[in-house]
Amino acid sequence: MSFVQPPPHPIQLQEVGMRDGLQSAGQFVNTDDKVRIINQLSGLGFAKIEVTSFVSPTAVPLLADAEAVLAQIDRAHNVDYVALVPNRRGLERALATDLDEINVVMSVSEAHNLANLRMTRKQSFEQFGSIMADAGHLRVNATLATAFGCPFNGATEVKEVMDWVQRYLDRGVSSITIADTIGVATPNQVYELCARLRALAPALEITLHLHNTRGLGVANAYAAIAAGIHRFDASLGGIGGCPYAPGATGNICSEDLAHALLRDGFSCPIDLAGLINTTKALEAILGQRFPGLVKESGPRETTHPLADAPNQ
Amino acid sequence: MSFVQPPPHPIQLQEVGMRDGLQSAGQFVNTDDKVRIINQLSGLGFAKIEVTSFVSPTAVPLLADAEAVLAQIDRAHNVDYVALVPNRRGLERALATDLDEINVVMSVSEAHNLANLRMTRKQSFEQFGSIMADAGHLRVNATLATAFGCPFNGATEVKEVMDWVQRYLDRGVSSITIADTIGVATPNQVYELCARLRALAPALEITLHLHNTRGLGVANAYAAIAAGIHRFDASLGGIGGCPYAPGATGNICSEDLAHALLRDGFSCPIDLAGLINTTKALEAILGQRFPGLVKESGPRETTHPLADAPNQ
Repeated sequence: MSFVQPPPHPIQLQEVGMRDGLQSAGQFVNTDDKVRIINQLSGLGFAKIEVTSFVSPTAVPLLADAEAVLAQIDRAHNVDYVALVPNRRGLERALATDLDEINVVMSVSEAHNLANLRMTRKQSFEQFGSIMADAGHLRVNATLATAFGCPFNGATEVKEVMDWVQRYLDRGVSSITIADTIGVATPNQVYELCARLRALAPALEITLHLHNTRGLGVANAYAAIAAGIHRFDASLGGIGGCPYAPGATGNICSEDLAHALLRDGFSCPIDLAGLINTTKALEAILGQRFPGLVKESGPRETTHPLADAPNQ
Repeated sequence: MSFVQPPPHPIQLQEVGMRDGLQSAGQFVNTDDKVRIINQLSGLGFAKIEVTSFVSPTAVPLLADAEAVLAQIDRAHNVDYVALVPNRRGLERALATDLDEINVVMSVSEAHNLANLRMTRKQSFEQFGSIMADAGHLRVNATLATAFGCPFNGATEVKEVMDWVQRYLDRGVSSITIADTIGVATPNQVYELCARLRALAPALEITLHLHNTRGLGVANAYAAIAAGIHRFDASLGGIGGCPYAPGATGNICSEDLAHALLRDGFSCPIDLAGLINTTKALEAILGQRFPGLVKESGPRETTHPLADAPNQ
């Protein structure tokens, strides 16, 4: 008797904190520290780790050491290393590395795409085609940002997302990320979109990229699993945000999601204790307290000494 | 196509922040301020408001003004006002007021009951019978605390909860609260217990009392709704905690839960904007920032001005 029946295959988590989190951390993390954290993450069971972004170092100085990070990390054979590529210049930089995959973003919202990438969606889509054609050894994942809502225009129509997915499928992509960039999705809405995508493209590798902005991160993940999705971006500690949506907290927290899944009968190959340690190590480096909750409370089996306390 | 089908009847929220939240707020809130906040809450659509506790003023000085609060609030005709009653002395105090309902707690875990109430469960259950017999005009709700886990002993067996619910049913109760006191429940676990309770006692008024300690508050509420539960305790701002579980954050946040339900097609008679204002008013009184998220981000339809920002 289950709310969401665990599927026969494992739920795969993809760690995006070192890119989506650190680009909005407010302070530069030294390359050595980034490398140390990524090396720890490599042994914790993530299917992919998004390690950096080949964005302009002037625009996002916090990730200006992309090449150095990639040159220095120890690569684990069972992890795919990913970087975000916003344009042709980013592709050229990525091609000079031994990345496994690049992640190319376009927003379903025209306003957000213009603000974020300084291009129309049409231009982004054409650029995507040219990047795919020249990607060489790199696998290409397409991310559709603002797939549930845009900070400028409000709600995103399901039909619009479906239409863009179809265009990317026609262009030959084999993996797509559907991103709730500003954390507006609700569980029934997630279920509907994911079920329709699953029906549209049963063989497509679909990742759901959720934010916990309104407290719905885990509920949305369960809804997506019920709809046949089993791959999620998440960030250690729940770091991250959206520069256009003030007050928006971060990505769904890797250890909170893993904790829920592991304790609820799902197969999910994450070393939870190791992940909590890594999150705390990054908190110490940044001198910040991240929003994740399990690192504070401990997993559910945590017990406490029976102390004398006032009755209530 | 829904993840959790909205039921034909509304989801009822019961505000417990003024008791469960304020007893662990770390500072006394003046009676006038308590009355002002409760009066605001009375107009926001809650089915019940737990306004205080008739616990010993020495044990919990933060709620020592129970009688004064009850004497001064303006009662709304469509709200039931509730107070926690830990023992016979509390009942005597409650009987001198015009409360609608008293809430009598017992922990399913013997260790937690001993620590929290200084009684065995057997003693608590016998006391419950005597309180029910002498409750006069007061309705009596039984809360089963630590129904999913105990901070000292770990997991609680479903069978043990079911057995205690059966004993309370045999004693004639018509409403029971199942409390995840320390926030250890996971969605599949919630679904199983709620579905079994619903099957055991179709006419019983069942409230689920959730904590968001491990980020699962809303996911657990959706699981419970799927199992036929439509009544939830929640606290404004997500305040609250458990004195025996360090690091445990508070109750499921009223406005975060209401936001999810309202935006996801459920009927839930909560004035969301009014509730966010009230939460912010209590934050200002306490000079604290509560853990709730929607008060920070705004509801999902919130948009932001299209400002010039660096591309990422």
